[in-house]
Amino acid sequence: MAQSWSFLDICESDFRPLVVIELAKSAKAETIEWFTKRIVDKKAKGGAQLLVKPLLTEKEGENIYLVGASHLRLLLGAETVGLVKECNDNSMRTFTYSSRKTFKGFADDNHDFLTMAECQYIIKHELENLRAKDEKMIPGYPQAKLYPGKSIVRRLLTSGILVQIFPLQDREELKKLCHSWYGRVKVGCQPLDEIRSYFGETIALYFAFLEYFTFALIPMAVIGIPYYVFAWEDFDKYVMFAIFNLLWSTVMLEVWKRICATMTYRWGTLLMKRQFEEPRPGFHGVLGINPITGREEPVYSSIKRQLRIYLVSLPFVCFCLYFSLYVMMIYFDLEEWALDYHEENDSNFSSLMLFVPSIIYAVVIEIMNRIYRYAAEFLTSWENHRLESSYQNHLILKVLVFNFLNCFASLFYIAFVLFDMHLLRQSLATLLITSQILNQLAESLLPYWLQKRYNKRMKKRLCSPKIDKDLSLAEQVNLEKEMGTYCGTFDDYLELFLQFGYVSLFSCVYPLAAVFAVLNNITEIYSDALKMCNVYKRPFAEPTANIGVWQLAFEIMSVISVVTNCILIGMSPQVNALFSDSKMEHILTVALVEHLLLAIKFTITFVIQDKPRDIQIKLAKLEFESLEALKRQQMKLMVESLKE
Amino acid sequence: MAQSWSFLDICESDFRPLVVIELAKSAKAETIEWFTKRIVDKKAKGGAQLLVKPLLTEKEGENIYLVGASHLRLLLGAETVGLVKECNDNSMRTFTYSSRKTFKGFADDNHDFLTMAECQYIIKHELENLRAKDEKMIPGYPQAKLYPGKSIVRRLLTSGILVQIFPLQDREELKKLCHSWYGRVKVGCQPLDEIRSYFGETIALYFAFLEYFTFALIPMAVIGIPYYVFAWEDFDKYVMFAIFNLLWSTVMLEVWKRICATMTYRWGTLLMKRQFEEPRPGFHGVLGINPITGREEPVYSSIKRQLRIYLVSLPFVCFCLYFSLYVMMIYFDLEEWALDYHEENDSNFSSLMLFVPSIIYAVVIEIMNRIYRYAAEFLTSWENHRLESSYQNHLILKVLVFNFLNCFASLFYIAFVLFDMHLLRQSLATLLITSQILNQLAESLLPYWLQKRYNKRMKKRLCSPKIDKDLSLAEQVNLEKEMGTYCGTFDDYLELFLQFGYVSLFSCVYPLAAVFAVLNNITEIYSDALKMCNVYKRPFAEPTANIGVWQLAFEIMSVISVVTNCILIGMSPQVNALFSDSKMEHILTVALVEHLLLAIKFTITFVIQDKPRDIQIKLAKLEFESLEALKRQQMKLMVESLKE
Repeated sequence: MAQSWSFLDICESDFRPLVVIELAKSAKAETIEWFTKRIVDKKAKGGAQLLVKPLLTEKEGENIYLVGASHLRLLLGAETVGLVKECNDNSMRTFTYSSRKTFKGFADDNHDFLTMAECQYIIKHELENLRAKDEKMIPGYPQAKLYPGKSIVRRLLTSGILVQIFPLQDREELKKLCHSWYGRVKVGCQPLDEIRSYFGETIALYFAFLEYFTFALIPMAVIGIPYYVFAWEDFDKYVMFAIFNLLWSTVMLEVWKRICATMTYRWGTLLMKRQFEEPRPGFHGVLGINPITGREEPVYSSIKRQLRIYLVSLPFVCFCLYFSLYVMMIYFDLEEWALDYHEENDSNFSSLMLFVPSIIYAVVIEIMNRIYRYAAEFLTSWENHRLESSYQNHLILKVLVFNFLNCFASLFYIAFVLFDMHLLRQSLATLLITSQILNQLAESLLPYWLQKRYNKRMKKRLCSPKIDKDLSLAEQVNLEKEMGTYCGTFDDYLELFLQFGYVSLFSCVYPLAAVFAVLNNITEIYSDALKMCNVYKRPFAEPTANIGVWQLAFEIMSVISVVTNCILIGMSPQVNALFSDSKMEHILTVALVEHLLLAIKFTITFVIQDKPRDIQIKLAKLEFESLEALKRQQMKLMVESLKE
Repeated sequence: MAQSWSFLDICESDFRPLVVIELAKSAKAETIEWFTKRIVDKKAKGGAQLLVKPLLTEKEGENIYLVGASHLRLLLGAETVGLVKECNDNSMRTFTYSSRKTFKGFADDNHDFLTMAECQYIIKHELENLRAKDEKMIPGYPQAKLYPGKSIVRRLLTSGILVQIFPLQDREELKKLCHSWYGRVKVGCQPLDEIRSYFGETIALYFAFLEYFTFALIPMAVIGIPYYVFAWEDFDKYVMFAIFNLLWSTVMLEVWKRICATMTYRWGTLLMKRQFEEPRPGFHGVLGINPITGREEPVYSSIKRQLRIYLVSLPFVCFCLYFSLYVMMIYFDLEEWALDYHEENDSNFSSLMLFVPSIIYAVVIEIMNRIYRYAAEFLTSWENHRLESSYQNHLILKVLVFNFLNCFASLFYIAFVLFDMHLLRQSLATLLITSQILNQLAESLLPYWLQKRYNKRMKKRLCSPKIDKDLSLAEQVNLEKEMGTYCGTFDDYLELFLQFGYVSLFSCVYPLAAVFAVLNNITEIYSDALKMCNVYKRPFAEPTANIGVWQLAFEIMSVISVVTNCILIGMSPQVNALFSDSKMEHILTVALVEHLLLAIKFTITFVIQDKPRDIQIKLAKLEFESLEALKRQQMKLMVESLKE
């Protein structure tokens, strides 16, 4: 096996491990040799031209490899993935190797030009784009079929030969980051640029949004406090609060787009061109010709997928929504029964019984949520989406609708069927506060505690007298490979989304919600940071320019909240008293005000530009330059042609 | 002066006049010589490298020039403007001179590869991009300042030296087009591809939309007829009609996007890249550095413009809207007074007096419309927008809002303040039918009649015994240069937009509106076609990929119509009777239904894809190809770099 490391041996001196590949213990030697050879092979031969080194561990049978790359290789890879970096003239430009000297901080011996997260992203990209040439199958595994152009890593993953690929932590950097992020008590912002250069744009953007959202909630919380303290119940004060709330949430969501654009421009992802999306790993179908690429690859009829979506998934989701509503009705019946029971036999036991329906309902909701989540994932996977983005969108849509109903259906029922504002306020407070506490516990503290315990056990086992560099690397890899995998920002955004719902949907009934949201988010920042740094293994950086579908979700929630608040105020006894003589006028006025508010909202959305003016100018400048370059090229051609 | 035609003389043999330039009679000889020299000059010298020929007319002092270009020059120009043509493999691609052989119908001697409209568009583009080099002013006119990069033609136009530039008609083509368009009575579609190749995409798209809209109204008209014939007044039937109307108009607007995409893909404009927009002719400011181009050009502070918009234009528009409402209230007072008068003295005179308020109101509205239109144009021009597109958007917005109010305010007042459904139906019918008749008269028949008279007079005057080719050209130019200029599709779209409002806003009250709309549109197609072919001079082709802001305007109208119809039905006596016991429930139900319908509407909009699947695949294919080409280039570079 030794001869296949030839390329590696030459470069051993400057080998810096970046990415860990863990192969199954049962992986055949011939497969491993073929795979590592493909990784090391020259580009011209169809390889990835990276460096590979086996990790020597004490445990027998483990197949762990470290992947790195030469500095030159990484720079060329940066061009391939379309990285955007800052130039000497402070503008952001797509990095190309030939223009490398014009970039800020570039020097041939400066190995810090690319951050470690960028290098790891490049290596991941190169590994995923390692494609089969004329192999019909993975050597040693005849059942793992390949066809020309199929990503080898994806096939290895789906057939279980490859257990995982993950980027190595940079212990020193991580320590620094932890310290400046949550290590000291401080007032102020998170070190977003550092988070971005360590964890990548997707995660940094989540934390930026969390921070922004928290700051944005503060005015609402501040205005909400006197309503609680002075027990303001006046109709006009609630109207004021609701209108302020509406305008504020609209402006807030629009301003976020601008902040996001400024930030991602600085990070270079705003300018990054979308890469052509390859099929997601789970996609399957019969071999056919892709009409877009003209290549042979699995194809799956779009009509079949549509049929699956509309004839199976949609009815299933509808049934689940119906079932969830049904469970809610049972809960209200139980609640009533408990109340009756308590009134009949007023005892300690009966007052305890009062809590039983809520507890049962909370538990049932949680169980339903879990089951539904699995079902949604299964169904979306069964829908067989070709692209990861399309899979994600369908999954998010399914989960979002169900969670929305689960969280808010009972509140809607109380508000618009029972018309019980007092109960609404009470339920809202209970739901908001308990969900926040449960989330904090389940999401961060529990995994943190488990991880701590595991780490201690591991350290004890590995604690050997020789503490040279190589072993400490092995130790690190062994520690990290057992850590949980961060499953993306989905759950974190979902939590924020539901919180936004609690704050805005019934804001005119319970202005204090914003206060709880702010308090929760401050601890959320710290607990999420802790989770990212200590609980999970480092995730690969994912370049992204915005928070994607969540922006839309928040905007829709803010539209719904205009409607609910208008109806709540319109139904209030004070408004009813105002229009006691004319029913018609009442309807018309409420409808008019609501639509006026919606019109104002959409006008604000339209008037506030999505990108700040300086970013717009910078983007226009880049576009102009490329158009000019094209024109110059055409002009040269034209002058030559006309000379002939 | 003769020596400046040297370049022309060589190519005289294949000179085909395409565009006419009319200079002021008072234009100085040195200016004309300089201008024509710049047009004829080589590209390398900063000229346009086109061909120019003076038109010899009988009248003394007229400065009319014909502009043409060699076949090669036109092909190179097609590349400059980014024309998209069909390739031999049936895909659409951006034309480049070097890849010319791969395009369908291309042959070096085939001068029909580019349509005449395309050639004229290229020449217009080249003329407009003829830019000042180091001239400080236009020779002979020291007050007409120039700076490097300023478009010469635009400066000549604004200083009145250049009277007009217009493309020549192709008499034979026009005759053919007229025949197949409206020459014979036929059932079926318009020859859209022919219209497009003669008048360009913007106009063809208007006619396509007009035709599509007419066809789309037919189902509504067919369903609306029995309501009139059987005098259906049942509540449930109106609900059915309103819901059908809502779904239909949503689907219709979405399907139009698909049809439009298919059409503009075939025409190549869907793929055409947006060119960098130059300042519009009327734009002025102090010389400064454009932050985007880095060139010296007039700049005008965006803050000043915003101040003008929000502090002057916006209050003015609001005042006009208020004034228009005030006039409407006076009209209703007058109406009431006339009714009272008629009841008091029942005579022939008094019954005649009943019509007086309506007539006065109609006249006043028309006058206000005209004055407002001038004011809007003046204000928008005074706002000093840098780009033509931004100017157009602001103008359209101003005019649209005012026209909407003028047309529909009285109907809204009758419906939601007077609650008089009978009067609403009557007013709607009167307004719709009279506006249609007036429009048809004012827009088409009157100009046609005037043009006919003028043509006869001209022909009589020009009728000379010698009818050789050159004179017939001079005759043609003289005829065409006096014809009216087509001011764009704005008024035509506006008319359709208002008609759509009449049909959909109160559709549940007056289902017959669609029938009148269909009848009007059928004659509208013919009268507009007549107008395009006979009344106006040929307009320059304007490539466009969609109907732009009008799509949005129609969509907003369709959202408003959901709201109005819901309220109308919600207020109807039948619905009132249903909820006689609970006011609260009534409000909630109406609001719920309305929002449900709006939600359905937005879902439909979201589910129906804007582009048909085959167009999506074709676009994705092109994008994939360009990404692949980039990748191949990078790969080559990488292999070379790694070899070193």
